[in-house]
Amino acid sequence: MKEFTINFTSQKKEIKVVQGTDLLTAAIKAGIMVHAACGGEGVCGKCKVLANKKEVLACQTIIESDLDVDVPKGSLGAHTKLAHESEEFTKGIVLKREGAFSFSPLVRKIYVELPKPTQDDNLSDLDRICTNISHKLNNVHIYTNLANLKHLSEVMRDSDFKVTVTIAYKDDVLDIIIVEPGDTTNTNYGFAFDIGTTTVAGQLIDLNNKKILGTRIAFNKQALYGSDVITRIIYASNPEGLDKLSEAALDNINEIILELSGAKKIALSDVYCIVFAGNMTMMHLLLKVDPTNIRKAPYIPTTQIFETIHAPEAGIEINPRGVAAFLPGVTTYVGGDIVSGVIACGLADNDDLSLLIDIGTNGEIILGNKEWMIGAAASAGPAFEGSGLECGMKAVKGAIQRAEIGKNFNVKVTTIDDGKPKGICGSGYIDLLCQMLKMGIIGKNGKINSAKKTKNIRKTEIGYEFVVAKDIVITEDDIENLKRSKGAIYSAIISLLNKVEKSLDDVKKIYIAGGFGNYLNIENAIFIGLLPDADRSRYEFIGNSSLAGARMSLLSHDAFRRAHEIYKNITYVDLSSEPNYMDEYVASLFFPHTDARRFPSVRL
Amino acid sequence: MKEFTINFTSQKKEIKVVQGTDLLTAAIKAGIMVHAACGGEGVCGKCKVLANKKEVLACQTIIESDLDVDVPKGSLGAHTKLAHESEEFTKGIVLKREGAFSFSPLVRKIYVELPKPTQDDNLSDLDRICTNISHKLNNVHIYTNLANLKHLSEVMRDSDFKVTVTIAYKDDVLDIIIVEPGDTTNTNYGFAFDIGTTTVAGQLIDLNNKKILGTRIAFNKQALYGSDVITRIIYASNPEGLDKLSEAALDNINEIILELSGAKKIALSDVYCIVFAGNMTMMHLLLKVDPTNIRKAPYIPTTQIFETIHAPEAGIEINPRGVAAFLPGVTTYVGGDIVSGVIACGLADNDDLSLLIDIGTNGEIILGNKEWMIGAAASAGPAFEGSGLECGMKAVKGAIQRAEIGKNFNVKVTTIDDGKPKGICGSGYIDLLCQMLKMGIIGKNGKINSAKKTKNIRKTEIGYEFVVAKDIVITEDDIENLKRSKGAIYSAIISLLNKVEKSLDDVKKIYIAGGFGNYLNIENAIFIGLLPDADRSRYEFIGNSSLAGARMSLLSHDAFRRAHEIYKNITYVDLSSEPNYMDEYVASLFFPHTDARRFPSVRL
Repeated sequence: MKEFTINFTSQKKEIKVVQGTDLLTAAIKAGIMVHAACGGEGVCGKCKVLANKKEVLACQTIIESDLDVDVPKGSLGAHTKLAHESEEFTKGIVLKREGAFSFSPLVRKIYVELPKPTQDDNLSDLDRICTNISHKLNNVHIYTNLANLKHLSEVMRDSDFKVTVTIAYKDDVLDIIIVEPGDTTNTNYGFAFDIGTTTVAGQLIDLNNKKILGTRIAFNKQALYGSDVITRIIYASNPEGLDKLSEAALDNINEIILELSGAKKIALSDVYCIVFAGNMTMMHLLLKVDPTNIRKAPYIPTTQIFETIHAPEAGIEINPRGVAAFLPGVTTYVGGDIVSGVIACGLADNDDLSLLIDIGTNGEIILGNKEWMIGAAASAGPAFEGSGLECGMKAVKGAIQRAEIGKNFNVKVTTIDDGKPKGICGSGYIDLLCQMLKMGIIGKNGKINSAKKTKNIRKTEIGYEFVVAKDIVITEDDIENLKRSKGAIYSAIISLLNKVEKSLDDVKKIYIAGGFGNYLNIENAIFIGLLPDADRSRYEFIGNSSLAGARMSLLSHDAFRRAHEIYKNITYVDLSSEPNYMDEYVASLFFPHTDARRFPSVRL
Repeated sequence: MKEFTINFTSQKKEIKVVQGTDLLTAAIKAGIMVHAACGGEGVCGKCKVLANKKEVLACQTIIESDLDVDVPKGSLGAHTKLAHESEEFTKGIVLKREGAFSFSPLVRKIYVELPKPTQDDNLSDLDRICTNISHKLNNVHIYTNLANLKHLSEVMRDSDFKVTVTIAYKDDVLDIIIVEPGDTTNTNYGFAFDIGTTTVAGQLIDLNNKKILGTRIAFNKQALYGSDVITRIIYASNPEGLDKLSEAALDNINEIILELSGAKKIALSDVYCIVFAGNMTMMHLLLKVDPTNIRKAPYIPTTQIFETIHAPEAGIEINPRGVAAFLPGVTTYVGGDIVSGVIACGLADNDDLSLLIDIGTNGEIILGNKEWMIGAAASAGPAFEGSGLECGMKAVKGAIQRAEIGKNFNVKVTTIDDGKPKGICGSGYIDLLCQMLKMGIIGKNGKINSAKKTKNIRKTEIGYEFVVAKDIVITEDDIENLKRSKGAIYSAIISLLNKVEKSLDDVKKIYIAGGFGNYLNIENAIFIGLLPDADRSRYEFIGNSSLAGARMSLLSHDAFRRAHEIYKNITYVDLSSEPNYMDEYVASLFFPHTDARRFPSVRL
């Protein structure tokens, strides 16, 4: 088969591809993240590139000759490399909850000096280990893989019966995953991961002392095949589509594993456990489980509980005997990420009524206490994750996370890690909307008031935009997008309360989770009508609670087991079939709301 | 690398091998079973062949040119092909015991017509199945493999939610091994196997109606690498030695599976379960678990319990989602075969004291009742399996299984299936020894009385032999061999009784198991001193009880679970450290015994 050379001029990357490859695939192979929201169907028009100076859609262009390709900035799908998340990222996470569960990592190492066998003490090698460690653990059944037995007798004798036994908790069974000679207990590491539709976040944890050794966050590479779960599920139905989606997520995961381990000079063979929290679609795609029916009414997943597996079964590159565990979900639209969040914030252990609002690619909401819980998903879209907006970005270095607009309409911005402003993250947008409302730059309907005299308001082909910083703007389309997102979340909260005939006053605690980085101004979020106008002291911002719950589960099999109780106790509410949800939604498409009485503290 | 052509002239087989291959390996590749007891170390001298008319040891001959090879009859290791065991083979097996356990095959198929999901009944696909079948089964935890989930949603919808769920019992967990569209419950097959050191026996069972669809028995192909467990364990320490031994057993197993399935036109994909009983070394070798320490004091196996695995993990060719289960053993020398025998005969459920004597390659003996059991192994050797004797063969068509010697010293033989006499099996040897003793052809010491005037007594280079039929003899070496075997078993029985201060009179039932085919004359076995001189009515011949117990476990997970209780209740007695065992053994090296008072019913 013929090979052609593709030269990506702006990125200075050159690769060889075989005849018949499409240009989008070639770009992916070159490590260039070309935006394509339609899964390569050629309808979204987002993967425009210049091939030998002629504009084409990359996904529709079959390579039949050598090409010089220029990928314009607008077609680039944000970061292709891992972002170095600041250590601060984890500060918002509710460390205080970790004391709620025993310190009992899902994978544990036990060093034993076993008595040597004699004619009278003639236990088999495996029994010798099990008998010894079962004194230390209260588990009925200790199991091991056949692979582990093959050289067990040699390992035990070569080490003079002094061995380290690495065990994994699986349901009520203890799985001896590896037996190593000597004492290796000082090296035992694990990863917690949150697999979001838009972002993938991973943390390396020392399982001996709970320490977080590093955190990374990256855009989910599946975005190449579609920006949301629906387009990805459609893409999955193509030949090898599911494989590609799984590989994209695995790329994210294995890169983060490699980078964080590498930074701390930790061998992958010393990493024995990885815990995942993620929404239902992400778990299906990662594990190559057919997701087709997730998007077809009545929206049924294959399973909401994925059992603990050996890491290589899923292509995860840690110790090949290591295990991968998954937080259980409730149903298609309330996944393991939100159950993980419930573990993290402790809502399921509260006597009082609490709300957990996770603002990710969708808004997922849990209302309840230790007696009962109901949950719903709002189709909020990823706007507050900085996705789908003109200058949106996630909460990493250089993202505008606070903004103040002066009297002269000039904007004073604060960026994460004081980086050069590159874009605006969710909390930045909330601040901006709030300030723009206060300054009259936008009205309650979200339209830019072009009568304001400032060069920062500019007319474009499709409407008006407001200049936030050099090359960074917020457009009317962005504002419309944000308005729908905040409306979806707010109306979902109210509908859930209505469902159980509770009022906002009954809610004693409101946990706000999401990819806002370290900063979310609750006051401003209420001001724009994203969050209900409740007493501020009831609010708590808890950051990426999905990741936090995964870490807690990694560090405590009690937490992991609790998650398996919690998911059963959450009743899913399908908002689309709630009689008043649509009315609530439409009424919320105003800043802060059509009914101003709902936001008494907001004066506009 | 150069290739040479090896022409096995007598067998009319020609193969090509690469330079450097040894001649023993070449013969194996050509499917010719050359005898070698030393594992290719060149010390047993049994693999003599003529290579270009020059006598060499096949195992010591590296091929450096084309060769014509003649393998003389004496160097051929008996049958290379599967023997077609008569259906009668299973008659002796205690079918009556099968009622002792519920009919609940280790793998079961359940056809379900599931309600279709709706908005209100939105269980995940897996939950829909589990909820439905857990009504039918009292199991706590239902599990399935990731592989099974990948296309589950499609299978369920394509079949309109009418599916067959195939489940395997694993400890207290139910493993859904496969979900198939439609109703396939009418095809569910399994195999029971006894893996002996000398022979491998397999049975195909219809798991819907318990019917035995066929039985096959073959010489264990591992014999190519050594005739007993010790030489095989030594061979396993060579590079790839363990792999070769495992492959040899797998060859036996997969051939029997293929042959029996083929004969009944059953697809391998309809075979979901295989249950193995075998001695500890056989299980280690089959599963490629390092057996080194089995033969080194204090004789410790890696494990005596092999957990249920998926069949492909062990290279077993049934449905790739099918499972392989293993009867648990007690210790190195009392393996899963004897625990299986206990299940089969019901010794562990008897109020009265019983003995189980399994005469295989070694004699394994259990003494006890439902309160307690002790077990021991006698180094009897495989003589009663027809191995290691001049004209010995196993109990298959053509084997002499009964013999009567007339006044003229001519022998009237009865062969299995009335085949042309090919050799002598264990029960035939017992009859012959008995008759020879009675006729004075041999004395109490086992020496042939050359003074007897008959052409059937012949002098050879190494002593005397007695002609049984055309080309079939019994030599003084054979008699010596049989004497040691019977002595080892008898003295082990007496030592076990002594150990617990019981006498033969306390034993109410004596189960005799072993590869004797359908026929064992208990009277004659007592006459030669193999079995103690107890009341004949207490004896019961139960045939291959290891295979019977495996079949019972295949057909009832209660039986399989009971085996896992039984093995824990058997205390192993190391005869070599019993003070009087050696004296007992030496005293038993007479026909029937040095102390004639022990055999009052025997008049010589």
